[in-house]
Amino acid sequence: MDLSHFAHQAKGYLMPIGGAEDKISQRLVLNRFVQRCGGSNASLVVIPTASSMSAESGSRYCKIFSELGARHVECLNIQHRHEANDPANSALLDNASGVFLTGGDQVRLVAHLGGTLLGDKLSACFASGLTVGGTSAGASALSQHMIAYGRSGASPSQRMVQLSPGLGLTTRITIDQHFRQRDRLGRLMTAVAFNPSVIGMGLDEDTAVVISPDNTCEVIGSGSVTVVDGSQLEYTDIYSVKGHGPIATLGMKLHVLTSGYRYHLESRQPEPPMQTTPVIKQ
Amino acid sequence: MDLSHFAHQAKGYLMPIGGAEDKISQRLVLNRFVQRCGGSNASLVVIPTASSMSAESGSRYCKIFSELGARHVECLNIQHRHEANDPANSALLDNASGVFLTGGDQVRLVAHLGGTLLGDKLSACFASGLTVGGTSAGASALSQHMIAYGRSGASPSQRMVQLSPGLGLTTRITIDQHFRQRDRLGRLMTAVAFNPSVIGMGLDEDTAVVISPDNTCEVIGSGSVTVVDGSQLEYTDIYSVKGHGPIATLGMKLHVLTSGYRYHLESRQPEPPMQTTPVIKQ
Repeated sequence: MDLSHFAHQAKGYLMPIGGAEDKISQRLVLNRFVQRCGGSNASLVVIPTASSMSAESGSRYCKIFSELGARHVECLNIQHRHEANDPANSALLDNASGVFLTGGDQVRLVAHLGGTLLGDKLSACFASGLTVGGTSAGASALSQHMIAYGRSGASPSQRMVQLSPGLGLTTRITIDQHFRQRDRLGRLMTAVAFNPSVIGMGLDEDTAVVISPDNTCEVIGSGSVTVVDGSQLEYTDIYSVKGHGPIATLGMKLHVLTSGYRYHLESRQPEPPMQTTPVIKQ
Repeated sequence: MDLSHFAHQAKGYLMPIGGAEDKISQRLVLNRFVQRCGGSNASLVVIPTASSMSAESGSRYCKIFSELGARHVECLNIQHRHEANDPANSALLDNASGVFLTGGDQVRLVAHLGGTLLGDKLSACFASGLTVGGTSAGASALSQHMIAYGRSGASPSQRMVQLSPGLGLTTRITIDQHFRQRDRLGRLMTAVAFNPSVIGMGLDEDTAVVISPDNTCEVIGSGSVTVVDGSQLEYTDIYSVKGHGPIATLGMKLHVLTSGYRYHLESRQPEPPMQTTPVIKQ
């Protein structure tokens, strides 16, 4: 199936960003997030918990979102699990139209929010229509099967990727970030090879995917998004490769999408931008 | 939430077994599986794909289930993904009342079934009421967040456990097996520390859990089941520990349950066997 397709009955938009998005010039990606959350009506909560310099990171995004026209912006700098279990903190989400998760370390973020009142509230609000964006670690953490750690390299190999349970706002996609910049195709293919029911999505820096409740993904930003689709995988030896050896995968399908391209999670079909026939990009 | 709680609207029973269950004497655990599937009306499909000696393993379980009174038993020995995508094979599940996954290697099993027609069919039939049992690797594979690999030891440490997407028939529980025999508490605690929204359940050999559609777990067999509940976790440093260093976890709750004890996944409450007050076992 998987049974997890129920998660896609959620009414909220997801917006993973590949990290290092433009924060000073056009700010196309961050502006899109604010617009998606209601523009001048946007009421945003920034959660900078992933960052080791969370106060600075939180303030910076709050400032940017205010400059981009959001009506209300608040920083929820969770540093302990008991804060994530404090009803006063999770109540901040009640009137929010968007939540933004900063970069840093996705394991740190999930270790603070996973299984807490705030973690549950985030899922519930997302199901009811909240937009949730995240950059870098904040993007990875959106996945049900989250990439916690990994090694660089273009080819899949054993023990190259360590998965852990993420915030689970998308169960279909395992998100990777800083993708081209940090040479992460191998680890994403390894993640998909374990169980091709999961779609791998690698986001370059300054590049984002806007995932709508109908499971359509739209690419925006200056880089590419690499989709790893294992639904036609004929064979992999992932279960027999020892140590850190290279893994064979036969029939893995890749799409590289740039700004304006779409991808449909249900049908696993890519779609060129606003044309009825495929285009060759100049 | 998590959103994955929808998976628990499934109507099927799950029956993970900790491996090395009695196959020659009383066969209490395997008999319970047959009874759960309808006893003399049971129509069973054994999938021995996890095993490196799958033909032998498949025949052995088919023979046992026949001896235990099942009306019809069939072996579906998938060895290639194209076989798992063959509609004739997945059609075998149409009239089955139970599916049994043998031991072996859970990574091998999921690499063959994940994202295939048969994998999807198994989930769909489980949602409609099919009973699914699995022993050892076949138990691990039932989890959404599956333990793929790991090291032994009583205390959690970094890189001690490698998770990957399993068959996803239970999204709440990460199942471990041969639990006491192979000293696996540390790796299960590590798995839960990543994200305490997941409940860890470690099954000793010759011990099983019968999970009903209402999310009640009943323990049967000669050993124990260890439940690792991180919902009250106050703090963990899992995100900052380097290399293979030891991980601190404050406030992790453990239950050790034996035959007849129950555990409720929704409320995370254990329950002594059929008494209104707690009993001290003799």
